[in-house]
Amino acid sequence: MSFRWLNKVKWDEVGLVPVIAQEVGSNDVVMFAWMNREALSRTVETGEAVYWSRSRKKLWHKGEESGHVQKVKEIRLDCDEDVILLKIEQVEGIACHTGRHSCFFQKFEGNVDAGEWVTVDPVLKDPEAIYK
Amino acid sequence: MSFRWLNKVKWDEVGLVPVIAQEVGSNDVVMFAWMNREALSRTVETGEAVYWSRSRKKLWHKGEESGHVQKVKEIRLDCDEDVILLKIEQVEGIACHTGRHSCFFQKFEGNVDAGEWVTVDPVLKDPEAIYK
Repeated sequence: MSFRWLNKVKWDEVGLVPVIAQEVGSNDVVMFAWMNREALSRTVETGEAVYWSRSRKKLWHKGEESGHVQKVKEIRLDCDEDVILLKIEQVEGIACHTGRHSCFFQKFEGNVDAGEWVTVDPVLKDPEAIYK
Repeated sequence: MSFRWLNKVKWDEVGLVPVIAQEVGSNDVVMFAWMNREALSRTVETGEAVYWSRSRKKLWHKGEESGHVQKVKEIRLDCDEDVILLKIEQVEGIACHTGRHSCFFQKFEGNVDAGEWVTVDPVLKDPEAIYK
C-alpha cells in the first residue's frame, strides 16, 4: 500500500500508531488500541474498526468474536500525525472484554501516599455469555 | 517511589504509559501524551497534568510555557492497566500547540484509494501569541 494519506501518518519504529476509540453521541472514550497500515486501511475500506493486536501479532477486527463491532463514523489525526482518534458507534454499547461499556472503568481515589484504583462502572453482560 | 497504586500500572518497556486527556463537560478528546511514574505521581500531587516528553526526555508540566494548564478532575485506568485517561479542565480551552482546542483537528475525508486529512477546526489563538 502506498496511499499518500497513509504515508502522512507517522508510524512508530515498529510500524504502529496509537488509536483512541470514542463513542459518537456520548463522547465517551471506550477503548485504546493500536493500528498498523493495513489495519487503518481496512478500517477505512470496511467502515469497521480493525486494530493490530500486539499480543496476538495479527489483525484484529474488533467484535469478530464478541459481536461488539465498532462502526466508524469519523477518523481524526492529531497535530503530530502520530495518534488516531476514531469516532465510533459501539454495537451493544459494550467495548470492553470484561462486558463493560468502556475499558476505563477503574478510577483513582485517594492521594499520592494512599491511592487506589476503584472499579466504578458495572458489567453490562457476563463475559462468559459474550465469548462462548 | 514504591506506592502500590503506581505499581498497579503496567509501565511499558521504557517505563511509560499512554495517556488520553479528555475535557470535562464536552467530553472532547483534546490531547494524547505519555507519562512515567514520576509524571503520574506529580499529576496526582499537584492536580495538574504532568507528562513525560519523549522528544525532550524530561518531565513536562503541560502549560508551563503556554499557560494552557490542565486541571485534573479524574484519573482512570483501563482494563489492561496500561493506558490512562485523564478528565481535565483545559485552561483557555486550548490544548494544542497550534492554538486549537484539540490536537485532533485533522479529519479523514475520501476513501481508501483517494483519501486526505483535512484541517477542520479553527485556530483559537495565534501560536506566536501563545509562546512569546
